[in-house]
Amino acid sequence: MTTMSQLKFDVTMSLDGYVAGPNNARDNPLGDNAERLHEWIFGLSSWRAAQGLEGGDRNRDAELVEEHLTNPGAVIMGRGMFDGNDGPWGDEKWNGHWGDEPPYHRPVFVLTHHAREPLTLGDTTFTFVTDGVESALEQARAAAGDRDVALGGGADVAQQYLRAGLLDEIRLHLSPRLLGGGRRLFEHLGDPLPELEIIEAIESGLVTHIRYRVVR
Amino acid sequence: MTTMSQLKFDVTMSLDGYVAGPNNARDNPLGDNAERLHEWIFGLSSWRAAQGLEGGDRNRDAELVEEHLTNPGAVIMGRGMFDGNDGPWGDEKWNGHWGDEPPYHRPVFVLTHHAREPLTLGDTTFTFVTDGVESALEQARAAAGDRDVALGGGADVAQQYLRAGLLDEIRLHLSPRLLGGGRRLFEHLGDPLPELEIIEAIESGLVTHIRYRVVR
Repeated sequence: MTTMSQLKFDVTMSLDGYVAGPNNARDNPLGDNAERLHEWIFGLSSWRAAQGLEGGDRNRDAELVEEHLTNPGAVIMGRGMFDGNDGPWGDEKWNGHWGDEPPYHRPVFVLTHHAREPLTLGDTTFTFVTDGVESALEQARAAAGDRDVALGGGADVAQQYLRAGLLDEIRLHLSPRLLGGGRRLFEHLGDPLPELEIIEAIESGLVTHIRYRVVR
Repeated sequence: MTTMSQLKFDVTMSLDGYVAGPNNARDNPLGDNAERLHEWIFGLSSWRAAQGLEGGDRNRDAELVEEHLTNPGAVIMGRGMFDGNDGPWGDEKWNGHWGDEPPYHRPVFVLTHHAREPLTLGDTTFTFVTDGVESALEQARAAAGDRDVALGGGADVAQQYLRAGLLDEIRLHLSPRLLGGGRRLFEHLGDPLPELEIIEAIESGLVTHIRYRVVR
């Protein structure tokens, strides 16, 4: 049996529902307090390896991050995640938050309202998609072959894919932290609301991993 | 070593953060869609036994509900949970949502702005507390002896206890359901925000149980 490539969204959410803090901007891409939200990841061996660092904790958390970093054949993200900014690209085009060697190492499709030629940095090529979420998914699937496509975020793009019925799985990393403000993930989800089922929950000390299947 | 009686809040929350649906009222105490939120509990043997019914599933979920139903020595709830209404009691006083034999079988302390004599129904006595959350907790602790005190809800009372630094543990039952509106649990929590730590997470098919220690 061939399993079709799925669109999966890996996301860390605060206990009060935020996936980014307030005041996000180009120089503050995940908003205030984002480090508190993501602190569970920084000490993991797989995360450190992706940044070119040695050492770190080798545990179930590290395995889950490793899967997320290596399994997908392509990535989709919103302009906000690439840029933290919106509007026309201007003369000095922003090349993302990741320097000359972005940690993706696979095709990335960036949803934007503003056309732009593809951008190659290291072994990552960013393709800018202006004709919507379905087109981005088609292009990402074509690039990924039979591998999964990772939805990188942010909340707005995830909501668009949920409303369109195109998201297959949410891999939630639920932090015990409270942010008190920022961008919520589970809002603006349309009517009828999506139906989710639990696939599995994995206990961990710093975060709780819960995989949800999007049923419809 | 004696472990001091703790204040614990057992609560089912939707994935989008709601503990009650919209339009809650006396004849709709948990708001619209509340049955969808709590459906994980209705088939459990321990829950059914508390309603005087036989049968039901005997599993880890049922054990957790059994603990919640039997361990506490006293219960605190808000007027909204007792009543779904607010304001003066009036001539025909409301006696709660539970009929002549409320399922508590232990002292219940109801936070309200409107004084009222204690009410005994079956083996449950409701004491109405008008002088605030600390007083209610003192009275509940005195009644509970060395057993824990259960915070019954709703969201507003839980937020008051969190802000006052008086809540020791949250036993969250995270449903995969989305409600799209209603009463959020984790908001209005003051500044600085409470700090939570994971005690344990327990996988289950219909809900994910996560116990949090409130650190401060």
